[in-house]
Order: sequence, then structure tokens, then C-alpha cells
Amino acid sequence: MRKIHVIGIGAGDPDQLTLQAVKALRSTDVFFILDKGEVKADLTELRRDMLEAHLTAGTYRVVQARDPERDRSAGGASYSPAVGDWRSARADIYERLIAEELGEDQTGAFLVWGDPSLYDSTLAILEEVLERGAVAFEYDVVPGISSVSALVARHRTGLNRVARPVQITTGRRLAEGFPEGVDDVVVMLDAHQAFQRYADEDVDIYWGAYIGTPDEILVSGPIAEAAPRIERLRAEARERKGWIMDTYLLRRRPRDGND
Amino acid sequence: MRKIHVIGIGAGDPDQLTLQAVKALRSTDVFFILDKGEVKADLTELRRDMLEAHLTAGTYRVVQARDPERDRSAGGASYSPAVGDWRSARADIYERLIAEELGEDQTGAFLVWGDPSLYDSTLAILEEVLERGAVAFEYDVVPGISSVSALVARHRTGLNRVARPVQITTGRRLAEGFPEGVDDVVVMLDAHQAFQRYADEDVDIYWGAYIGTPDEILVSGPIAEAAPRIERLRAEARERKGWIMDTYLLRRRPRDGND
Repeated sequence: MRKIHVIGIGAGDPDQLTLQAVKALRSTDVFFILDKGEVKADLTELRRDMLEAHLTAGTYRVVQARDPERDRSAGGASYSPAVGDWRSARADIYERLIAEELGEDQTGAFLVWGDPSLYDSTLAILEEVLERGAVAFEYDVVPGISSVSALVARHRTGLNRVARPVQITTGRRLAEGFPEGVDDVVVMLDAHQAFQRYADEDVDIYWGAYIGTPDEILVSGPIAEAAPRIERLRAEARERKGWIMDTYLLRRRPRDGND
Repeated sequence: MRKIHVIGIGAGDPDQLTLQAVKALRSTDVFFILDKGEVKADLTELRRDMLEAHLTAGTYRVVQARDPERDRSAGGASYSPAVGDWRSARADIYERLIAEELGEDQTGAFLVWGDPSLYDSTLAILEEVLERGAVAFEYDVVPGISSVSALVARHRTGLNRVARPVQITTGRRLAEGFPEGVDDVVVMLDAHQAFQRYADEDVDIYWGAYIGTPDEILVSGPIAEAAPRIERLRAEARERKGWIMDTYLLRRRPRDGND
């Protein structure tokens, strides 16, 4: 039976790998690296560096495929998406990778930035491949340090305040309104800086980009003061590197002075 | 200047330590282990085992203190809480530990189960100690695999569904009502099985106790079916071990059949 590890590899700092992840890497024959296009070549390189740091050359194989997410116009990748929706296109690719690149008794792995449980589609796609029934495999999940945990660790703050909830959501949802019933909100996948909408409110922001890497940028403070700085730094970094990965925590200050 | 590491050590599986955490352990002179009383002696032992696995005997020291949380009636601990509220009592203890047990050029560490950012008071207490001004130190935070990440990894599911939010909250809050605006809710610190209130609703539960340890128990399914099983297993395990650490994800099924 083929085996698959879905391995969370942390938010950018190679030392955020867990011992469990290193063991999983070492028990893997074939690594599947989904390339999201040239702008994220840095991220592909970082993953290859991790493998070289922990594994013996010649004991494993890397198969790189083009992720359909970024493959809307171009051809040329050996595993290009079929017609159909995006998830189905990804399932096509994963299915072929597993069936064609992995021997019956071999173990493959997908390396996922952060933690596979947060805004990552790998698990859902593997389930879809299994449901189709064309290729059989077992899989397990190795949890990783999420960019959320990495963000607040670098800011040395908690996600929640005492006995209170925290919500993790997307930039798109935040643009629709501050979530109800919570004063602590972590925002991921925000390409449009939805936090700007709350610049007039009593909210603190803890923002970070490229967390745990040499390019790391951290900004925190009252949102009115921090927002313009974040906008500037974000635009500069994006221009310089060609891509950005950022996350932030919004923390509404207590209205009555009590925490 | 004294240094302190606040190190997330994962949810129970010693292999959930990150490489960064192991490096932090190795740069520590004195470990402060806060003992929550005899029922959690297992947890104290697990931490000592981790130190022995990664460090050379004789290169570090362990100072154990009684956490005031469980020290309401008895005396006898070398660091017992002063009068005042609980956080203040803890700050008293931390302050004395750092001032009396750590040399001026030494590094101390607090080992935190899971991730220090989720429902843990260590960071807030260290900030309080710094504000008092009696002892100066620098500190950093090493993120850890939270019980939340560990739970969903073992259940091989995500925390959120595509483009949707997830909330992390407490049993007490869940008992007041299902949080607004979210269909995926992770519940921590629930001593009273607040999920039972939702047994008649279209909700799936992913529950786990002692996650990542040899005692691990996992149950998932529609809450109506899973709840009685969880109650039974939970009561048995608690009886057998004397304590329990459990966490769960509630996932409301889509009302209209769309995900």
C-alpha cells in the first residue's frame, strides 16, 4: 500500500520543523513539490534546502509539479491541470503524481507551509483522490507551526486574552465587517489590507511578513499609527521580492478599561 | 542580563518539539517547572523526560515550584503564593524564581504545553514581573504545536473549511451559545462537556484526549452519536489517570448541502 505524509514544515524558519516532521521526511521516498509559479521560487528553494539539511543525497527523489492555481495561462508543466474546477484540477495532478511517481510500497510526502490544518487544501484534495478510487493509499498528517503561532511568538503576545475567544479568518471576510462576539481576530490571505477599514477604531494590530525568515518584518501598535507603516513596508517588500506572505492579529482594546 | 525562553513543547508527543525548541533547551541553564499538584505529576515527568532526552546530565538545573492554581489550601512549597489575586500570586513566584534561581548571566526557561499563545498565562505573568521592575530580564517565545493543531492532524481534517473562519473558545463560552458567524469552533478548557448542549443539532465533533501520548483517545462523528461515547470514555480515562486534557472541534454541517 502506498503511504503519504502531509507534513507541516513551519512558517518559514527551517528550525520550526518538529522532530516528528524530520522523522517523516526521513521515511519518505518521493517528495511532491507543488510550484506556484516563478514568483514563489524562493519557497520551493527553501523546501529543497530543508531536505538537503536533513536527508542524505541519493536516498530520496523530488518531483516538482505546477500548481494549477498559477497555471491559468501557460502550458509546459509535465502535470498540467485538466478541464474542470480548480480543486478537481488539483486532484487530477495529485492523483497522477501518486499513481505514476510512487511505487506500490513507497512513501510520498507533500510539504505544507505552516500547519496543514489552516487554509491549506492538501487534505481535502487527497480525500477527493481517495474518493475517486483510481489509486489507493494511506495518509497521515504531521502538524506544523502555523504562521499564526509564529506571528504571535515573534510579537511575544497571546492569541487570546484570558478566558476569551479568538477567531481566525480571511481578509475577504474581515472586509465585510469585524467578526461578531470576538475582540481578537487573526487574518490570513489578505491581499487587500482589509485592516485599513478599522484604522479609526480602538484596535491594536500585530502584523508580520516572511515570519521566521531573514526577510522578516514585524510591526505592532495602534492601528491608526501602524497601518500607514505596514502599507509602505508591505509595498516595498512585495516590490523587492516579487511576493509576500503576511498575517496579522487585530486586538480590540477593552471599552471599559478592563481587560 | 538574565534571559528567559518561553518554550512551547507540543501537545504531549515528545517528537512534537521543534528543532528551535531543542536549541532553546540546550541554551538554557535553569528550567522552571511549575507543578500543578499531584494529579499532574505525569506531566511533570514528561517534561523531565524531554530534558533528559535532549540534554547532557549535569549541564542544567531544574527548579520545581508549586503553581498557586492548585495551592489554595496547602503550604509547604518553597515558593508559595503571597496574598492577592491569582495572577499576582503567580507573578510573585515567577519573580522570585528568576531573581533567586537565575544568575545575572544565565538563561532560564519555562516549558509550556502546546503553544504559549493559546490559553496560557506565562507571557502575561512575565510582563507583569517586568512591569514591577524588581528584576530585569529579556525573553523570547518559541512557538509550539498546539493541542488544536495536534487534534486536527490526528483526525486528518482542517480547522477551517475553504475561505471560512474558525473560532477557538472555551467550554464556558460554548455553554452560553454557539458562537455567532462561525460553523467551525474549537473548544479548550471544557471541564463540563458543553458540547452536549448541541447533541440535537447537525454538528460533527472531532474530539481527542491525551493527544500524541500513548493514552491518546480519538472520537469523531455526528455529535448525537459521538457524545455518549465521549462521555463514557472521558469519565473512564479521568478515573484511571486522575486527570484529563482534552480538546475538540465542532463543525456545523452546511444547511443547504453546499460546503
